[in-house]
Amino acid sequence: MTKWVYSFSAESTEGNREMKPLLGGKGANLAEMCAIGLPVPPGFTVTTEACLDYEKNGQVINDEISAQVREALEQVEKITGKSFGDDENPLLFSVRSGARASMPGMMDTVLNLGMNDSSVQGLAKLTGNPRFAWDSYRRFIQMYANVVMGFNVSMLESTLEDLKEARGVKEDTELTAEDWQELIEVYKKIILEETGKTFPTSPMDQLWQAVAAVFGSWNNPRAIKYREINGIPHEWGTAVNVQSMVFGNMGEDSGTGVCFTRDPSTGEKVFFGEYLMNAQGEDVVAGIRTPAPINEYSKNESNKNLKTLEEVQPASYHALVEIYQTLEAHYKDMQDIEFTIENAKLFILQTRNGKRTAAAAVTIAADLVTEGILSKEEAILRVNPEDLNQLLHPRLDPVATKVLLASGLPASPGAASGAICFSSEAASIHAENGVKVILVRQETSPEDIAGMVASQGILTARGGMTSHAAVVARGMGKPCVAGCSELTISYSEKTVKIGGETFKEGDPLTIDGGTGEIMKGIVPTISAKISDEFASFMRWADEFRTLGVRTNADNPEDTEVALSFGAEGIGLCRTEHMFFAPERILAVREMIFSQSVEEREAALLKLLPFQKGDFEGIFKSMKGKPVNIRLLDPPLHEFLPHQEEEKVELAEYLNISVKEVELRAEKLHEFNPMLGHRGCRLAITYPEIYKMQVRAIAEAAVKVQNEGIEVKPEIMIPLVGLGAELRVLRSEVEGVLKDVWKEQGKEIRTKIGTMIELPRAAITAAEIAKYADFFSFGTNDLTQTTFGLSRDDSGKFLPDYQKREILKQDPFVALDQEGVGFLVSHAVREGRKTNSNMHMGICGEHGGEPSSIDFCHRAGLDYVSCSPFRVPIARLAAAQAALRNR
Amino acid sequence: MTKWVYSFSAESTEGNREMKPLLGGKGANLAEMCAIGLPVPPGFTVTTEACLDYEKNGQVINDEISAQVREALEQVEKITGKSFGDDENPLLFSVRSGARASMPGMMDTVLNLGMNDSSVQGLAKLTGNPRFAWDSYRRFIQMYANVVMGFNVSMLESTLEDLKEARGVKEDTELTAEDWQELIEVYKKIILEETGKTFPTSPMDQLWQAVAAVFGSWNNPRAIKYREINGIPHEWGTAVNVQSMVFGNMGEDSGTGVCFTRDPSTGEKVFFGEYLMNAQGEDVVAGIRTPAPINEYSKNESNKNLKTLEEVQPASYHALVEIYQTLEAHYKDMQDIEFTIENAKLFILQTRNGKRTAAAAVTIAADLVTEGILSKEEAILRVNPEDLNQLLHPRLDPVATKVLLASGLPASPGAASGAICFSSEAASIHAENGVKVILVRQETSPEDIAGMVASQGILTARGGMTSHAAVVARGMGKPCVAGCSELTISYSEKTVKIGGETFKEGDPLTIDGGTGEIMKGIVPTISAKISDEFASFMRWADEFRTLGVRTNADNPEDTEVALSFGAEGIGLCRTEHMFFAPERILAVREMIFSQSVEEREAALLKLLPFQKGDFEGIFKSMKGKPVNIRLLDPPLHEFLPHQEEEKVELAEYLNISVKEVELRAEKLHEFNPMLGHRGCRLAITYPEIYKMQVRAIAEAAVKVQNEGIEVKPEIMIPLVGLGAELRVLRSEVEGVLKDVWKEQGKEIRTKIGTMIELPRAAITAAEIAKYADFFSFGTNDLTQTTFGLSRDDSGKFLPDYQKREILKQDPFVALDQEGVGFLVSHAVREGRKTNSNMHMGICGEHGGEPSSIDFCHRAGLDYVSCSPFRVPIARLAAAQAALRNR
Repeated sequence: MTKWVYSFSAESTEGNREMKPLLGGKGANLAEMCAIGLPVPPGFTVTTEACLDYEKNGQVINDEISAQVREALEQVEKITGKSFGDDENPLLFSVRSGARASMPGMMDTVLNLGMNDSSVQGLAKLTGNPRFAWDSYRRFIQMYANVVMGFNVSMLESTLEDLKEARGVKEDTELTAEDWQELIEVYKKIILEETGKTFPTSPMDQLWQAVAAVFGSWNNPRAIKYREINGIPHEWGTAVNVQSMVFGNMGEDSGTGVCFTRDPSTGEKVFFGEYLMNAQGEDVVAGIRTPAPINEYSKNESNKNLKTLEEVQPASYHALVEIYQTLEAHYKDMQDIEFTIENAKLFILQTRNGKRTAAAAVTIAADLVTEGILSKEEAILRVNPEDLNQLLHPRLDPVATKVLLASGLPASPGAASGAICFSSEAASIHAENGVKVILVRQETSPEDIAGMVASQGILTARGGMTSHAAVVARGMGKPCVAGCSELTISYSEKTVKIGGETFKEGDPLTIDGGTGEIMKGIVPTISAKISDEFASFMRWADEFRTLGVRTNADNPEDTEVALSFGAEGIGLCRTEHMFFAPERILAVREMIFSQSVEEREAALLKLLPFQKGDFEGIFKSMKGKPVNIRLLDPPLHEFLPHQEEEKVELAEYLNISVKEVELRAEKLHEFNPMLGHRGCRLAITYPEIYKMQVRAIAEAAVKVQNEGIEVKPEIMIPLVGLGAELRVLRSEVEGVLKDVWKEQGKEIRTKIGTMIELPRAAITAAEIAKYADFFSFGTNDLTQTTFGLSRDDSGKFLPDYQKREILKQDPFVALDQEGVGFLVSHAVREGRKTNSNMHMGICGEHGGEPSSIDFCHRAGLDYVSCSPFRVPIARLAAAQAALRNR
Repeated sequence: MTKWVYSFSAESTEGNREMKPLLGGKGANLAEMCAIGLPVPPGFTVTTEACLDYEKNGQVINDEISAQVREALEQVEKITGKSFGDDENPLLFSVRSGARASMPGMMDTVLNLGMNDSSVQGLAKLTGNPRFAWDSYRRFIQMYANVVMGFNVSMLESTLEDLKEARGVKEDTELTAEDWQELIEVYKKIILEETGKTFPTSPMDQLWQAVAAVFGSWNNPRAIKYREINGIPHEWGTAVNVQSMVFGNMGEDSGTGVCFTRDPSTGEKVFFGEYLMNAQGEDVVAGIRTPAPINEYSKNESNKNLKTLEEVQPASYHALVEIYQTLEAHYKDMQDIEFTIENAKLFILQTRNGKRTAAAAVTIAADLVTEGILSKEEAILRVNPEDLNQLLHPRLDPVATKVLLASGLPASPGAASGAICFSSEAASIHAENGVKVILVRQETSPEDIAGMVASQGILTARGGMTSHAAVVARGMGKPCVAGCSELTISYSEKTVKIGGETFKEGDPLTIDGGTGEIMKGIVPTISAKISDEFASFMRWADEFRTLGVRTNADNPEDTEVALSFGAEGIGLCRTEHMFFAPERILAVREMIFSQSVEEREAALLKLLPFQKGDFEGIFKSMKGKPVNIRLLDPPLHEFLPHQEEEKVELAEYLNISVKEVELRAEKLHEFNPMLGHRGCRLAITYPEIYKMQVRAIAEAAVKVQNEGIEVKPEIMIPLVGLGAELRVLRSEVEGVLKDVWKEQGKEIRTKIGTMIELPRAAITAAEIAKYADFFSFGTNDLTQTTFGLSRDDSGKFLPDYQKREILKQDPFVALDQEGVGFLVSHAVREGRKTNSNMHMGICGEHGGEPSSIDFCHRAGLDYVSCSPFRVPIARLAAAQAALRNR
């Protein structure tokens, strides 16, 4: 027989904290607290499996479950000496949901269950406190109507307000027993009128319906939405915790509160919390009465004149202090504790690991190590790497009012506000005039770089998590919301329609690149603070990780940021971004339009000094750390002029007609540029391009080395699919290097390798490895080709995939370990068969994503490379991967 | 020590016919003929390895080789009793190249080597025939100057013409010994003047330089080009055959000739050949004298008045007959034999398997079986499947004059001529007026189908071997030249520029889809004949093959063609082509532009009867053979209107503005449509589309079955990359089927499966197989994604890949077994792990390509599917695969 129900009490406890999947987080912790002797009101937990059974069973609680619930209930009656449904000494219950993962505010709770017109009288007599009894009954009716009967309680609440006004009082506590009794009659009448149902009087009926309601609430839309956003599987289900009531509202020596064992905002090691006397749990968070501070430390502007619990009831306070210390030592983490004091006796209703800011998470973990509670390893595993984002980017003021317009992909974290602009030019002009701007585009392309630099944030209608906008914005550390299909942009009219509203150039918008939200107007932001502990915490992480962490950067500014965050080299320096500067683009276009090798070489000769300068700057800023430079990758038509003026300018420059410019541009058009004439394919047809780039690298390396700065260049040939491609191109690269070393009288050790970014490259890695000193996995493109999925186009339908649960995670965010990962592992294995020492890394966007970094560690890579702002995340994730896979 | 030189003679022979890689085809066969006792002049072969060594060694013949050559030479002197370089009884040699694969006309030959001013006298004295001696010397000088000294011999030839004119004679044979002697002095003078070098007099020097020249000729541009075209590796090298001379020009009882053991045009079993008395080998093919027929059968219009060899020298003729029978029995194939008669004694200089037409190949193979020379298995392996193309398509008249303009990809075989048209409309109008047209487009799209149907052939500027134009043309059996980058098309001016010339609409052009050539004007074509033996030969093939052969067809016309060629079912019925008919396209566009599920369903309801009709027609024509129907695959924007009138028509039909039409169309734009919102992704977002198609299939199946015709539908879901996609869509398909079976009161067994066309699908085949009754490998898309290579764009650079030997074969033509094949094999293995009975086939273009079919056989597929005109090729290739891999 399945065990569907687990009892907990000081006397006998069937569960423990390891049983979260079955008992939910709350149930497992209640059991655990009982087991370590804390004062927890007795009760029982109905398992998550019962929830799934309930759904499978056509929303009926099966007989086995019923029988076990009845048995557990009798046991609670025995322990408490009270009786469920008894008029004289009634046992009352709280009924709460409790899922495996914390889902705050998503599930529902009923308190004081078991009350009716008779037992309220018994409770009043028993406690000698009729006001308490009627107040409890009123609360029960209100909650039950709401949660179990699905009744909108605003009507009940306004009746209460009316009554308070009639009585001329402000606080609920000022109402008398009679007032509550009168109100209850009105409540019942309203419920009957509105729902056509009498309020149930049988406690057992109340219990079954409440349990069913909690089960059912697992699938309420709010809960489903929350799970979708947070990646919680729908098949987990929720447990139900049925716990005997203790009453914080039994009079002035009763109360209830919430406390944290450390400050959840800063992480400081101080006991922190709020409480209310003569109140039930909901009152503390409801905001009707201002909660009081439990101690001096917890005082703030709004509560500084209220008495602390330490002052009001020192015995309870000191008991609480003792308990929190026990709990923190037991759970080895900061705890978020709910307590109730009934007639000066303290009960613990719940404990869980407390939510905290990233800064607090780092501080707490560091302190717990200092205190000897945690090992460094445990501390490192405690902090969620993604949370470090908070430390590095400004965010919306949580108390500010927001008018949400639409949501897109959270492409680059941080919040930003500004006047919207629809072109790179407009953004630049406004920015020069000191206006903060948000660049709004269908999508961005390398031509928009200047506009992106000038903007506070970027918003696009198309493109996914690794679209141009997303990748570049993350590189710049700028907020970006991408692929918001609800935008209808008209460039000609300079408007964007979002939802029903139209915004024109200059109108203010706010974006949150961490959530993907787009808001009307300017929403205030706050900048995040970096705690002192952060640096030392990161150093601990570095002690354990075996993966190197490099950065993707292509200019000295970005490399400086990355170095300050701890980058150990450049894993990907894209050379194409360098081609767009105004003083270069004409020569680039001249090169593209060349009709002969000689013309092409002449145009490339003009670019050589620029490229050489670029590489000098990067080599200097990296001071001897390895710099992996990818030779030109994108299709040439990305560099073509689109604006009429640009075409005219180019035509004049080349001394050809505008029509000829258009004709030659048309010849470069491709149906699927992603799969077209790009990467090393350009070098097979136009060897001169790579030759110029290699010469620029080599000459820059010699120059910088001659200035006394060590240089470690790595030359990466992109989009190789055939061993022969790399064989041929490697020999051309070596030829140019040899020439330069001879000319300069100096040789710089230079590695030559390739990106593995095509399935065929991964499959034939053993062959390709013959000609490569290193592999760098370009998992953006590898994901595109393995899935046959364009990252720029997938925004239109991937949301449907996630909604229908066909895809759990965007494969451009978290590496698809089953598919793409198979190819990466295969290539690592095959490549090392040929060259057992081969250095291997990853330079796709996945290089900064924790689950992907864990995969990279397991696959045996040597390093990951990510955008500058993700370097700390990668360092921490790499340390966690090393610890997790020891 | 390496053996660099192999001797052959009646006395002792070191090689045999298995040694072609080392001795070349000619050398191996000379050795073999010696071994079986045929009268072959003695000599020796310098190996292909020596050729490679020569190149590696900086074009120097190493000492080991020199020594072995001298030794072999002495042996020939011993056998012949003559001496190389002797003035009295000189030994003369022919020096010929001989590569592993036959490279006719590509390599060079020197005859009579060893002659100089002294030995010519000796030869004259010895033979008593000064005219012969001086003629031989003259020939030697001419050939040596050409081949070894690289001298352009036209000057020598015109001197000979001048002399003949001066002497008033027409034939070389009419010149006297003195004439030749005089001419030789002039030759020597010209050579000295023009090259600054004296003609070498030392026979040994002549030999070394001739051998070196043959080795060097392996890398002459003609030879390189030939190897590129024919896929012969450059690293094979060529052997050199040094053979003692026999003389066909020693007088009127000497002669030379070429013969075939069967007719190479028809395959008829008749001895066939030509000869010339008093001539050396070159004279027969040089076209200066008309060769005579060797027997009655060989007579034709131009030679019917000349005497046959049988008449002139019956003894030699009968010896030749005996030898040809020996050779054919020995080689078990039709032979192409070169012979020389010296003073009425017959010598065989060369034998090889004769080239033949496809019709002859089939007839010969069939006859050899009947004659008991070959087994059926051997006969089947003899015929090159690709050659069957000749039997099925018209070709250019080989004797017609051609003005070649440019070359593109040979995308669909056959030759066609017509007036050029630049639009589908123009092609249709001209065709209706009875004009034969060639459709010329940048590329074709499904909108051009009508124009393609109306045309004799298709010519495109873009796209590869599996571009839309190529695939559809092959399906239609129409000639197509694709991806000719030398075309510059102006649609607005209705002109195409090819090379320097401009052609306007209506100008005649000819294309050869078998070679990719584009020719000016109308070049006459001849239709190929299908021999009676063809059908029975194909039946033998069917006895051995284990692979099924299906066809890719989507209309009853194509299925009829395929059935007549022996197709056993439809492996791929594309449903999108059906959407373009004028009466449907509006409803298709209405469906695409729908803003709600209801609108979409309403539009689809209009399409349902059309689709149902399509499937009825196909089911009926296939008469119980399996029909695999792929649900809608291409991105929706392929169906959008492009012409202004179409947009207006659609706007009126939908009652929206033209601007709105453009706006909605713009929303569907994709950067990389190949990797975009297509295939099953459409059905995830718009489930209604597949539901309509499945309903049409099911209703059509019931209707046709009710008419007493068996139906075997298979429903294929394209572009699956995730098991969950197929799980969800399979259940939707099953839902619709269940509804229809219930409505119709009849259930038709229907398989549901998927295309494996994405790397991720292949990798995770075990998971996908859970939801699939069959796999069909879509190797076109699988090649695109595995290589990251768009077939529509690759035409721009793949030629460079082939030129630089980076890619041996276009992977869209021959399956890339190393890369794409790895994924196919992996998927077969993994899929069968889940479902050991799973039926698997291939439906990419590779399904009709012999080397790919061999791979499919080895990979364990159940069938291949190809375009109708390739069905016979596939049947033969499948039989060969079965035999080869027994």
